[in-house]
Amino acid sequence: MPSHSSPIIPRSSLFFVGLDVGGTSMKGGVVDDAGRPLSAVSLPTEPEKGQEHGLRRMGETIREAVVAAKLRLDQIAAIGVATPGTMDIPAGIILDPPNLKPWQNVPVRQYVHDEFRVPTAFQNDANAAAYGEFWVGAGREAHSIVLFTLGTGIGCGIVIDDMIIEGEHSHGAEVGHIRIELTNPRQCGCGRWGCLEAYASATAVVKRAHEALTQGGGTSSLHQTTKERGRITAEDIFNAAAAGDALSERIVEDTAFYLAVGATNMMHTIDPDMVVFAGGMIAAGEPFLDRIRRHVKHLAFPVPAEKTQILYAQLGSDAGFIGAAACGRQLYSRSNRPAT
Amino acid sequence: MPSHSSPIIPRSSLFFVGLDVGGTSMKGGVVDDAGRPLSAVSLPTEPEKGQEHGLRRMGETIREAVVAAKLRLDQIAAIGVATPGTMDIPAGIILDPPNLKPWQNVPVRQYVHDEFRVPTAFQNDANAAAYGEFWVGAGREAHSIVLFTLGTGIGCGIVIDDMIIEGEHSHGAEVGHIRIELTNPRQCGCGRWGCLEAYASATAVVKRAHEALTQGGGTSSLHQTTKERGRITAEDIFNAAAAGDALSERIVEDTAFYLAVGATNMMHTIDPDMVVFAGGMIAAGEPFLDRIRRHVKHLAFPVPAEKTQILYAQLGSDAGFIGAAACGRQLYSRSNRPAT
Repeated sequence: MPSHSSPIIPRSSLFFVGLDVGGTSMKGGVVDDAGRPLSAVSLPTEPEKGQEHGLRRMGETIREAVVAAKLRLDQIAAIGVATPGTMDIPAGIILDPPNLKPWQNVPVRQYVHDEFRVPTAFQNDANAAAYGEFWVGAGREAHSIVLFTLGTGIGCGIVIDDMIIEGEHSHGAEVGHIRIELTNPRQCGCGRWGCLEAYASATAVVKRAHEALTQGGGTSSLHQTTKERGRITAEDIFNAAAAGDALSERIVEDTAFYLAVGATNMMHTIDPDMVVFAGGMIAAGEPFLDRIRRHVKHLAFPVPAEKTQILYAQLGSDAGFIGAAACGRQLYSRSNRPAT
Repeated sequence: MPSHSSPIIPRSSLFFVGLDVGGTSMKGGVVDDAGRPLSAVSLPTEPEKGQEHGLRRMGETIREAVVAAKLRLDQIAAIGVATPGTMDIPAGIILDPPNLKPWQNVPVRQYVHDEFRVPTAFQNDANAAAYGEFWVGAGREAHSIVLFTLGTGIGCGIVIDDMIIEGEHSHGAEVGHIRIELTNPRQCGCGRWGCLEAYASATAVVKRAHEALTQGGGTSSLHQTTKERGRITAEDIFNAAAAGDALSERIVEDTAFYLAVGATNMMHTIDPDMVVFAGGMIAAGEPFLDRIRRHVKHLAFPVPAEKTQILYAQLGSDAGFIGAAACGRQLYSRSNRPAT
């Protein structure tokens, strides 16, 4: 047991802090050795105030999370920090993140480590979310999972046998950017063509609905929604589909198909126990998941089609900090493992 | 050291047998602990004679490989057998292999183990080839590789940090069957639509050339080749392209693009050190590899595009049995590792 642990805390009560840094806010919490969150606090990231401010804000969030858990800093065994890319994971550095402008080359892990003096892990946010679900969420019984986070973009994380597939150049599990169309590819937010994300992110769902409305769809209830609110969201489209709007129904069905293509491509690459969908779009509920499952049955080889579980995530927006804490925990356990 | 090792053989001279079972022939060889093949023998598989015959033939090939290496069976530390799918890798069973009809549910690992009484590994042939290249071939300096074998179909193997990604249902690295086209998909030999294999296998190259010849291509030299020989091969197409035939040039260029899409999709999923191409088609030489590399530069994210090595395999048709031997060696080292 490390000397900074309080003598009254037994080995089974190790505590870890996870921090999930996003473009708008950062969420931090203390997680115990069984993966139970003991606190969760959120502070604005304010990336526009610069990276020095951002690093101090990370320290602040970690401290507040510890206080909110009614613990002392010297009771924390390790910390994990998850951030959006681009990044150099082994070096612990954020490089040039589109969602954290104008940050560049920010030595996150070193800063947090110097500040708190405990083992500090650093990880991509989508990878951390996957690892959180793998540890104590939808994948807690699985040996391997692939997680898709459906939001503005499509994030992905892959975990096999407690190993995050982070890649040799920190580009592992960028599965939103596998190409699924050659002939008539949509352009992706990343600038490339035919990426899965350009078809099945929440942004893409709205874009495809707009196109369908422009090209016809005279009777769609989405016209009224647009008039009333000036815009439509993915949620509006899923709601309209559930209420029987034919145009929306088609958009939702196509989305399920595209996601099934993404899931199948991973089933034919990683062949995990489980494909998990997370993010705002899973508010669409079980009927949408069932659509994805139906397409997977047709698209995948018979054995994975039958055996691979297709599920929704269970940790909601806590997955990131819980997964970040899990990365801290993994680092701690590796550095405290008896030498072999 | 296990008791069956001869006392005159030091630890550094462990020997393994690898066996690579194909639809036409099976190739076996002894490989030393440094990955050097000491023998290579080949016998016809004759799957039509049934699986009992096939199992005996495996035993025969292993014995001949040992004799050809001037060794005794009691000097063999472990055996690895690689076969085409479908299969249950953990169970050591071939299930219903299209290339080994009429075999069904063949307990390969158990048979070979009972016959030779040494640790016996069982693996998919494409995975074994990737593991062979990872051990002592193109990937010997790499931490992770993705290998594509371009032949009648497209086989694939993924190795990360000495772990073969075999999947939870023995369907890992079936990357020939990731879908890369939605709008106008070609049908694959597997019955599915839009698979990479339907675009970029040697079979697909010939098929696309036939289509192009039918749809025009009046001046292509391939017309003459077809007349002379009654058919064209992928090799003919690559040769005609090298000699300046415009239609063939286009087919070759498209093939390079499709393979670059496959490579990029793996760079955005696994993000390996290295993507390796193997199989008959690599006879096309460096110019073809350079075409693939050029497309990857445009298709992939900047960091993997710059850093990921795109190479040809180095072990030729020995990769399968060397990789199978490596699987035996891995099993041996695990079963002889000190308990932790």
